[in-house]
Amino acid sequence: MSVTAAAGFEAAGVAAGLKSTGALDVALVVNRGPLQNAAAVFTSNRSQANPIIWSRQVIADGTVSAIVLNSGGANCFTGSQGFQTTHSTAEGVAAALGVSASDVLVCSTGLIGDLLPLDRILAGVAAAVPALGDNGEDAARAIMTTDSKPKLSIKRGDGYTVGGMAKGAGMLAPGLATMLVVITTDVVLPSQALDTALRAATRVSFDRLDSDGCMSTNDQVSLLASGASGVAPELDAFTAVLRDVCLDLAEQLQGDAEGASHDIRIAVVNALTEDDAVEVGRSVARNNLFKAAIFGNDPNWGRVLAAIGTTDATFDPYDVDVSMNGVRVCHAGAPDRPRDEVDLSPRHVDLLIDLKSGEAAATILTNDLTHDYVHENSAYAS
Amino acid sequence: MSVTAAAGFEAAGVAAGLKSTGALDVALVVNRGPLQNAAAVFTSNRSQANPIIWSRQVIADGTVSAIVLNSGGANCFTGSQGFQTTHSTAEGVAAALGVSASDVLVCSTGLIGDLLPLDRILAGVAAAVPALGDNGEDAARAIMTTDSKPKLSIKRGDGYTVGGMAKGAGMLAPGLATMLVVITTDVVLPSQALDTALRAATRVSFDRLDSDGCMSTNDQVSLLASGASGVAPELDAFTAVLRDVCLDLAEQLQGDAEGASHDIRIAVVNALTEDDAVEVGRSVARNNLFKAAIFGNDPNWGRVLAAIGTTDATFDPYDVDVSMNGVRVCHAGAPDRPRDEVDLSPRHVDLLIDLKSGEAAATILTNDLTHDYVHENSAYAS
Repeated sequence: MSVTAAAGFEAAGVAAGLKSTGALDVALVVNRGPLQNAAAVFTSNRSQANPIIWSRQVIADGTVSAIVLNSGGANCFTGSQGFQTTHSTAEGVAAALGVSASDVLVCSTGLIGDLLPLDRILAGVAAAVPALGDNGEDAARAIMTTDSKPKLSIKRGDGYTVGGMAKGAGMLAPGLATMLVVITTDVVLPSQALDTALRAATRVSFDRLDSDGCMSTNDQVSLLASGASGVAPELDAFTAVLRDVCLDLAEQLQGDAEGASHDIRIAVVNALTEDDAVEVGRSVARNNLFKAAIFGNDPNWGRVLAAIGTTDATFDPYDVDVSMNGVRVCHAGAPDRPRDEVDLSPRHVDLLIDLKSGEAAATILTNDLTHDYVHENSAYAS
Repeated sequence: MSVTAAAGFEAAGVAAGLKSTGALDVALVVNRGPLQNAAAVFTSNRSQANPIIWSRQVIADGTVSAIVLNSGGANCFTGSQGFQTTHSTAEGVAAALGVSASDVLVCSTGLIGDLLPLDRILAGVAAAVPALGDNGEDAARAIMTTDSKPKLSIKRGDGYTVGGMAKGAGMLAPGLATMLVVITTDVVLPSQALDTALRAATRVSFDRLDSDGCMSTNDQVSLLASGASGVAPELDAFTAVLRDVCLDLAEQLQGDAEGASHDIRIAVVNALTEDDAVEVGRSVARNNLFKAAIFGNDPNWGRVLAAIGTTDATFDPYDVDVSMNGVRVCHAGAPDRPRDEVDLSPRHVDLLIDLKSGEAAATILTNDLTHDYVHENSAYAS
């Protein structure tokens, strides 16, 4: 399911020995057509991995036959040999499927700075091709790193399907951080329309997920369309379904963030502009002291106001309201309800910031800063 | 010593019951003249505490007779009553010393959003005045919050002295974060010259200390000059001595950062501009994944390059060198010496980033991200 839910797609996930555990580590998703339209968005990090450099070239003409993904190594900062590994992987997929290498996207995730063993990847590709079928969950498992579970989503439009898979459990930040997402659909839409829809959908989903403020070198969100449903929806309707898939996957990524004990939804309302709302939400989402306080079940609204104060957004510090889980703890920049009325024991935390400066709003998803976050990211080289 | 090392100054530190532990919590530093020249810099956080709002008015004319500081409460976001508390504190000091309240700086540190008990502060002021003397260390202890020790520094110029005290053990970020610093000197310099020197010195010291990226609402660095030495140094020479005091105190703040197990010195060299060097250094200093890796003694240079890639600085990702503790682990964006040659067991870590894009440089001081940081900032409301 997931990436194989839409008509026209096959997938496989195999173990190629890239992970020392022997777990699945190479995924292949193939678009059998009749159309092979596609769009993709990439990390905005200027330090870009070899598969990003490669895939930017592939997507330029809007045609994609297949996407191959590996965990067990990011293939980033691995020199010219590293780029050759990416290129050869695409050529291996192309030869096995009888397509052009220039229509094969490549994604990698894992440790930066280590060369990938090309022979193992090519053997993985050779094993994946005969395994192609309705194996979306295998593919989703093959791209997991520290993820505790695969992330899958399927939504139905009027006569068509959008399905997706995602991996990512850390370094989640605006600009699509350490996140690989593949979404497939059977709509009949040209690549330019897919690109418009994908950018609109990611802007309010993955781009507003900021687990730990760290942006990866390898992020990629790809959208492949087969046209197999024969349905050509209105772009707005399709974008809405696509956005639902993206939001569903983004919330799954948030819920599986490394070491997190709280999922925090920061809603910024009555901002002068949407950009202001996003800037304020991100500033709070990246404030380690606020995030540590939430871990300690401490409704520390002072740290929220201190974080807001570092932004350029339009607001009056003495006219801001802050509520946590429905309790307004700060009104007009002064204490309101007692802190101890706030129950932060549930995993989900709603933080509401009312800037009283306009009518725009935005929601940022983040996590708390925990002992387990420090443990996983100090003990695990990634 | 420290703030009482320069001729013309007296200080006191007393316990006024603001801290539940009964520790010293009110400090008073008085300039006996003959001059009462002064300069100050304040947090750039737009959410500013009442003592910041007050002290900005006091410093406007460049004349300061005394500075009163308290721990046990930040007096930030406490409404109009909170501002009245700051005002009344200055008036209490002024009445006891026979000076004008408009020449009394006020600093507070502690929890945001709680009202300070004015009666206790005024009682503390009343107790501090008769205790005035060569009590710089008492004053330094009275401003401690989670600091494990007082921070003191004294440097001698040619016939004059510059001495200072500082507090701060968290929320240390550019813009002078949760940091109170008082520096005294006996030079004969007008307030405008003191202001020039202070801004030059803080720009390359406190402003380059970025322990956890969190900017406080209460930071203030004040410089008071008595003229009691009778020496009027060249401004450049004085600035150099002042900078040494600031750097000494900044390194003491770094060394006492909450829960840190490593002091990390990030030197960015061969940048096109100093601003580029600062931006790159700060980006690395704020990268939680890099900071957690250092806690785990993992020389994870990939996380360094990923952090650099989020900046707008001029650099070529494939022409950057990264060294840790003298071992070049990345050369021209590819692996160089093996990671296991890097010994990260000492507390001090030298990270060298060579951007190969120009001749400018900057150094940022930061700390690692540890279990103790999370513990102290989740268990302690501040």
